[in-house]
Amino acid sequence: MTLSLQTVGEHNTAKSCWVIINNKVYDVTEFLNEHPGGSAIILKYAGRDATLAYEPIHPKNALDKHLSPSKHLGPVDVDSAKVLTEAKQQRKRTKDELRVEEAIKLRPPLQRILSLADMENVARHVLSHKALSYYSSASDDEITYDENARGFTRFFFNARVMEPVSHCDPSTTILGHKSSIPVFVSGAALAKLGHPDGEINITKGCAAGNIIQMVSSNASLSAEEIASAAAPSQTLFFQLYKHKDDVIAEKRVRNVENLGYKAIFLTVDAIVPSSRERDIRSPWVLEEQETGPQWHTDGEGTADTSDVFGTAGALIVNDDRDMTWEKTIPWLRRVSKLPIVVKGIQCVEDAVLAAEAGVDGILISNHGGRQLEYSMPSFEVLYKLRKQRPDIFDKVEVYIDGGARRGTDVVKALCLGARAVGMGRPFLYAQSAYGEAGVTKIISILEREILTAMRLIGASTIKDLKPEMVERIDWQLVVRAKL
Amino acid sequence: MTLSLQTVGEHNTAKSCWVIINNKVYDVTEFLNEHPGGSAIILKYAGRDATLAYEPIHPKNALDKHLSPSKHLGPVDVDSAKVLTEAKQQRKRTKDELRVEEAIKLRPPLQRILSLADMENVARHVLSHKALSYYSSASDDEITYDENARGFTRFFFNARVMEPVSHCDPSTTILGHKSSIPVFVSGAALAKLGHPDGEINITKGCAAGNIIQMVSSNASLSAEEIASAAAPSQTLFFQLYKHKDDVIAEKRVRNVENLGYKAIFLTVDAIVPSSRERDIRSPWVLEEQETGPQWHTDGEGTADTSDVFGTAGALIVNDDRDMTWEKTIPWLRRVSKLPIVVKGIQCVEDAVLAAEAGVDGILISNHGGRQLEYSMPSFEVLYKLRKQRPDIFDKVEVYIDGGARRGTDVVKALCLGARAVGMGRPFLYAQSAYGEAGVTKIISILEREILTAMRLIGASTIKDLKPEMVERIDWQLVVRAKL
Amino acid sequence: MTLSLQTVGEHNTAKSCWVIINNKVYDVTEFLNEHPGGSAIILKYAGRDATLAYEPIHPKNALDKHLSPSKHLGPVDVDSAKVLTEAKQQRKRTKDELRVEEAIKLRPPLQRILSLADMENVARHVLSHKALSYYSSASDDEITYDENARGFTRFFFNARVMEPVSHCDPSTTILGHKSSIPVFVSGAALAKLGHPDGEINITKGCAAGNIIQMVSSNASLSAEEIASAAAPSQTLFFQLYKHKDDVIAEKRVRNVENLGYKAIFLTVDAIVPSSRERDIRSPWVLEEQETGPQWHTDGEGTADTSDVFGTAGALIVNDDRDMTWEKTIPWLRRVSKLPIVVKGIQCVEDAVLAAEAGVDGILISNHGGRQLEYSMPSFEVLYKLRKQRPDIFDKVEVYIDGGARRGTDVVKALCLGARAVGMGRPFLYAQSAYGEAGVTKIISILEREILTAMRLIGASTIKDLKPEMVERIDWQLVVRAKL
Amino acid sequence: MTLSLQTVGEHNTAKSCWVIINNKVYDVTEFLNEHPGGSAIILKYAGRDATLAYEPIHPKNALDKHLSPSKHLGPVDVDSAKVLTEAKQQRKRTKDELRVEEAIKLRPPLQRILSLADMENVARHVLSHKALSYYSSASDDEITYDENARGFTRFFFNARVMEPVSHCDPSTTILGHKSSIPVFVSGAALAKLGHPDGEINITKGCAAGNIIQMVSSNASLSAEEIASAAAPSQTLFFQLYKHKDDVIAEKRVRNVENLGYKAIFLTVDAIVPSSRERDIRSPWVLEEQETGPQWHTDGEGTADTSDVFGTAGALIVNDDRDMTWEKTIPWLRRVSKLPIVVKGIQCVEDAVLAAEAGVDGILISNHGGRQLEYSMPSFEVLYKLRKQRPDIFDKVEVYIDGGARRGTDVVKALCLGARAVGMGRPFLYAQSAYGEAGVTKIISILEREILTAMRLIGASTIKDLKPEMVERIDWQLVVRAKL
Repeated sequence: MTLSLQTVGEHNTAKSCWVIINNKVYDVTEFLNEHPGGSAIILKYAGRDATLAYEPIHPKNALDKHLSPSKHLGPVDVDSAKVLTEAKQQRKRTKDELRVEEAIKLRPPLQRILSLADMENVARHVLSHKALSYYSSASDDEITYDENARGFTRFFFNARVMEPVSHCDPSTTILGHKSSIPVFVSGAALAKLGHPDGEINITKGCAAGNIIQMVSSNASLSAEEIASAAAPSQTLFFQLYKHKDDVIAEKRVRNVENLGYKAIFLTVDAIVPSSRERDIRSPWVLEEQETGPQWHTDGEGTADTSDVFGTAGALIVNDDRDMTWEKTIPWLRRVSKLPIVVKGIQCVEDAVLAAEAGVDGILISNHGGRQLEYSMPSFEVLYKLRKQRPDIFDKVEVYIDGGARRGTDVVKALCLGARAVGMGRPFLYAQSAYGEAGVTKIISILEREILTAMRLIGASTIKDLKPEMVERIDWQLVVRAKL
Repeated sequence: MTLSLQTVGEHNTAKSCWVIINNKVYDVTEFLNEHPGGSAIILKYAGRDATLAYEPIHPKNALDKHLSPSKHLGPVDVDSAKVLTEAKQQRKRTKDELRVEEAIKLRPPLQRILSLADMENVARHVLSHKALSYYSSASDDEITYDENARGFTRFFFNARVMEPVSHCDPSTTILGHKSSIPVFVSGAALAKLGHPDGEINITKGCAAGNIIQMVSSNASLSAEEIASAAAPSQTLFFQLYKHKDDVIAEKRVRNVENLGYKAIFLTVDAIVPSSRERDIRSPWVLEEQETGPQWHTDGEGTADTSDVFGTAGALIVNDDRDMTWEKTIPWLRRVSKLPIVVKGIQCVEDAVLAAEAGVDGILISNHGGRQLEYSMPSFEVLYKLRKQRPDIFDKVEVYIDGGARRGTDVVKALCLGARAVGMGRPFLYAQSAYGEAGVTKIISILEREILTAMRLIGASTIKDLKPEMVERIDWQLVVRAKL
Repeated sequence: MTLSLQTVGEHNTAKSCWVIINNKVYDVTEFLNEHPGGSAIILKYAGRDATLAYEPIHPKNALDKHLSPSKHLGPVDVDSAKVLTEAKQQRKRTKDELRVEEAIKLRPPLQRILSLADMENVARHVLSHKALSYYSSASDDEITYDENARGFTRFFFNARVMEPVSHCDPSTTILGHKSSIPVFVSGAALAKLGHPDGEINITKGCAAGNIIQMVSSNASLSAEEIASAAAPSQTLFFQLYKHKDDVIAEKRVRNVENLGYKAIFLTVDAIVPSSRERDIRSPWVLEEQETGPQWHTDGEGTADTSDVFGTAGALIVNDDRDMTWEKTIPWLRRVSKLPIVVKGIQCVEDAVLAAEAGVDGILISNHGGRQLEYSMPSFEVLYKLRKQRPDIFDKVEVYIDGGARRGTDVVKALCLGARAVGMGRPFLYAQSAYGEAGVTKIISILEREILTAMRLIGASTIKDLKPEMVERIDWQLVVRAKL
Repeated sequence: MTLSLQTVGEHNTAKSCWVIINNKVYDVTEFLNEHPGGSAIILKYAGRDATLAYEPIHPKNALDKHLSPSKHLGPVDVDSAKVLTEAKQQRKRTKDELRVEEAIKLRPPLQRILSLADMENVARHVLSHKALSYYSSASDDEITYDENARGFTRFFFNARVMEPVSHCDPSTTILGHKSSIPVFVSGAALAKLGHPDGEINITKGCAAGNIIQMVSSNASLSAEEIASAAAPSQTLFFQLYKHKDDVIAEKRVRNVENLGYKAIFLTVDAIVPSSRERDIRSPWVLEEQETGPQWHTDGEGTADTSDVFGTAGALIVNDDRDMTWEKTIPWLRRVSKLPIVVKGIQCVEDAVLAAEAGVDGILISNHGGRQLEYSMPSFEVLYKLRKQRPDIFDKVEVYIDGGARRGTDVVKALCLGARAVGMGRPFLYAQSAYGEAGVTKIISILEREILTAMRLIGASTIKDLKPEMVERIDWQLVVRAKL
């Protein structure tokens, strides 16, 4: 059975809500209240084509997973399909889309990208406002986001000279899996917002560069799609946002284990949404940009209770807010044989509890400054752990993410005992700017920078990196604008 | 008897000074020297209509209170009333008034206010120059004002994960009275400068949001008017500026106790006026804005002795400058059964003395940076008190105000032992921007922010907040302009 | 005998150099090498009228003192005088002079000057480029100049409340002489550069405000002229730059003692000229401003050896560079009964040596940042002295100058044990902006600010100010631009 | 035999690559892979005239040294020479060349250069983009470059007064050789980029100013040329970049010893190239400046592996990356009798090892921030060495370079025990701006500044400079833009 636009258009309310995605019609009436992103965003497209809004943030199998076959009402009819196609073609580009098109043309050749900052700079130009807002945003005033990066800058090297370093090897293993450099891709969601190939750009780039990708529960491609894109021997880890329903969560874990993922990174720092104001504001900024301020308000209107959690908040609405060391780690051990890493350790006390709970690794992380504002910068937590509990580094593998952007950052973390450093946004930016080639490029930049730093501090292997090689300074850098 | 404009106009000197307010004539000749704001400001309107200058800064009953009935000379005659009305209608709007009218039209919808900073930003646009100058000004170079806010930023969280927080309760009690969140409205005067409904906007917003309002002696509405606007079970506190005459002061206290106010916050940090230069300069800036610089000066004129204390100075000219622990607290206990809180504690020593004097609570405060320039930032005083005299927190309830603008600020203060955090300017800004709805809005923003912060540091009740959850950093934040 | 311009004009070389000042002719040939400011500046006017360059920086009796009567060649003839007068009248004003004239017209009324910063701001507009360069300049990169002011900002008050302060007395004595506030005028040279009445503006303002003026050896008026302008009971101190020839120096000291000066402040931090680049550059900047860059250079010319010490360097070329504690203090005791204060103490060690040498007071000073670049800020030296050698405060009176601009600055210094605070530039700026009235104005501003600060920290007399009332902070202020 | 342009033009590939330099033809086919700067830069000129690119960065004897006589193919023929000359004459100046020509005309007279900052400012205007990029660039984000200079600013003087300083002598010896001031020229390469006379400007200026020049292995003039330009008794040191082939390295050392160089400064901090992004970007910036962005890219091109080490990287490609204390110092002792100084000590541990290895001196240096990013600032290393191992200063002469720009910087380093301070960039800038006269000028500026600082802290000889005269401050300077 095919359906006409007119028929679909009659189901444009919360009581009967149909939408068209890629010329197929779905009845999402009952799903409205289950949608992680809330009902409002769906109702905006009730009775209409929702393809453009749907595609960049959902894996292809999302509808199959969440909507029973009986709600798949079938394709639109031929004439309707034609109308939809024409509408797409004639759709007036927004100012933001035109800006992006222009920016893409002006990208410099990849050879001229010298650093991750260069790459981010290109990405900031070619990303849509919505994507950049989602990627770059952090909580509240973005203090912890900034301080994550600044945390690294307070540590200088006590460089050693006269050490033989012509042969220098920056490779290591993470949970027993080889990595060409002590860097991995930390879970970062919604890559399709920045590039149509999405997370697969990262997967392929990691295959080429021989580093490990941690895939997010909230990726815009499914765990299956990403696993399929991986090279035969390529290592993937899985970042788990545990569902509050243990049954659903277990199903998820078993699924990724079956797909060949090699470790579970249990996210513990994002159990409730934070306020990422830049992300929340993005649609308003865009609206104003397109049409100017046009609101009608009596100014002293009634207080509103609208949801303000933006793209980010929608993703975690069903996550488990009552995880505990006593309950959750044993549960995870039961349902999976994979190594367990706790992602989101933010203080020494919890690093100790994690080790006592018998996990395989901890990832010192504050979610890139996207969750708790004024969380201690990751590198400071690492430094404290090294000073207060050096024994922990022998009990679990310790990783860190948040703010690292240079080979020197990575080497500093390794000197203090980190096994590897995760990066999230840099990979989102790289794939947004140049697709897979961008990902490969930043891996090679990092490798060069790590090698240079290792040699210039007198280290020829990862093992040569020692705590005494870095020193915390007691003054503040003044980062100038370059002349 | 009615009076003509001409008759009134003959009494235009200090020897015989009549003014018209809302079409009624008053003889204020003898009152000139008693006027807290000085005689000059009254003489400016001698023999003329003073309504526009009078209304925004005086409670409605101010004339009745301060002027004996014999000085109420009666209404102007019908023709005069007509002339005054026409004059009002034909009065050319000042540039500042026109600017404000435009700004009010451009206010964003309330839903788009995400933070107290957003709210302040709207207020800064819609407030008259005079009102903004009064609200935003602080002493001298506004160092302590700035440092109050920065004091909070030096403390980061040691966040705990894996704690059950799906149920999280931010409510508390203050002096036994319930509050939905650990925040109260700290005394802030002259709300009518920002909005015609004045302090009542705050009262009604607090009723809706279930938090407590501390009403200032210097409110632009009377204690009676505000109490009348309160909901039946609503809690109000009273901020007392003690008059130097104990008899007058006692009368004031007994009056507010009778009106149902539940505590006396004795102000001890504002016994003499400070120099709030922004406020003092406001009329000059306005004058220059309207007409350009037009002064006539020989430059080397004689030294002047003019009063430079502005709006603020006028309010406290009769306050008691000789209060002591030995004399004043016992006096207040004698005249009232209400709990006593000392507002304006600025060092550990005085916190101890206050506890020894047997008060019920102390409010660590430097008057929002509006009194002693270079007073230690409130949060630093709180931190010192926690470190040096943790026993004080068991003896009195400890509050803090000055500089808090985020839920994280509130949570930090509570970790260190504060029972609640006061805010003044944010409520003045909120009511100026959107009236009562603005007040309700910022309470709901604060509630959301407090809940998020509590959950993300692993606390499900106020009692779970501990000193070890915050840590003083030894580096300086660089607060960047957002991209 | 009268002389014609033509005759004078023939003596236009170093071999025979005549100049005209106020229509009188002087033979300065032999004086060329003795001129403290060097011969070049005189030779620029050889054979010509030098009045305009001479007057603003020399006391009226300078020529009589330094030039024997035989070199006073007599007046120019009537026709020549007429020509000179016409030349003066027709002289085209420089752009800088025109700018100053305009700025003087735009000065705000004195009542609108709220702070010493306001006063400095006016002065910066009305001063000639040359005068501002001389007054405002400091050594090298002006680091110590800036840090002097910032030194005060690192100290906050532990304010006490509930102290009776309705009566509050900020007066004190300095070396036994009364002062209405604990502030004195520190030696500051060349006041005529900023105002035709020069140092006498300060003298008269101090008489009105009841504070003490320290008069510089390098004042643009003579010690006699200033003493004559003083009120009968007014106290003046003398800042001595000791000549390297003890006989000349002794004559100077005996002279000022006879004139009624009450103390000798022996300058020890300015024995060689520093490099005040802003001052040195001033004539070049002016030249470029008038005519644009017009130099002719082959670029690779020979190295030059020109003197670069500017206005400041010229003044101290004959000073004693070999003073010692053993030799110089006893010498000064021998030649004068006046109290001796050593001006320019920059470390604790020398404070101790000064006390051991038996002087009456020390002035902690680095010459307002105009001598040794990277000299420790004065307030830091005071703080160290208080911590390391509190006994010194009982042995000598301790003063401080450099960077104080607010009543709070003064009160902080007094808390740490200083008896009084000197200010130099503020008085130069005040007299430049409004003459004597400007001086009186800033004294009254300081009195108000000191009173306010004392009351708000709970002190009713100078004796109530204690070290524990100020505390050194360990973070850095961010001084924002006001909105 | 002479060759025609046409003949040469046929050899324009990697298989047969001829180039013309100063009208002579060279076959560089076999040399392509040996060229330290890589083959690509040569191939750009294959079959063509390479003179303009060759001259500014190669010593005159470079071709003789590196190319066997059989590859010197002889001159071009007369007609070709004429064509080349015409081409040179008609070559259109680039925008950058035109800018430089204009800037040279606008240089201020040398007398107006008051400081090394003034000199650098002139140089920044007159240098070509390429030269400035090479001189000013440093690693990565140029953090260590900036911090080197800021390292000095954290130390203030405890100045002593009342010391006899009319006679003050800033001279010293370095490795027994006299120096008029405790400053030497630290190795700085490629002076011809900034001025056609190149390093000889520095040599002659040092002869005039009586200070010592350390000549770099990578100078744009040969060690012979520089030695020939030296005055008879002038002291030169040699900065050795040790070749990985000991035989070649030994030959180099013996050669400079024979040429009369008086010490070997063994460079140990530059064994691998760093990433000096400003330098690497220079050709791209220039290209864009001339023609606008013109790249053709599909954006998602394949990852590149192009060399990104710029001018700097090319110079050290054959250096020894496996030097050790045990092997390299004894080797150097064997092949030379000259004193050995290790250049590039970056921590206390290596200072100790160097002393134990028996070298004559150590130069605390991080290569001016051009090698390891986040290397500890030189002055901090000096300070640590003074605090932790004061004995080292008795065992070896200790020098420091990196960031010193003022006489006060030099005096601070000497107070802490440094024997002399090296400067590199300031001499490159000085010779670029004014040739030899520029070099002489900055020596005289430094002498004046050092003398002033010594006198104002109470020192009359280098021996009077003591550690207690400088003190590390615990606050941060705010360096303002001057008004």
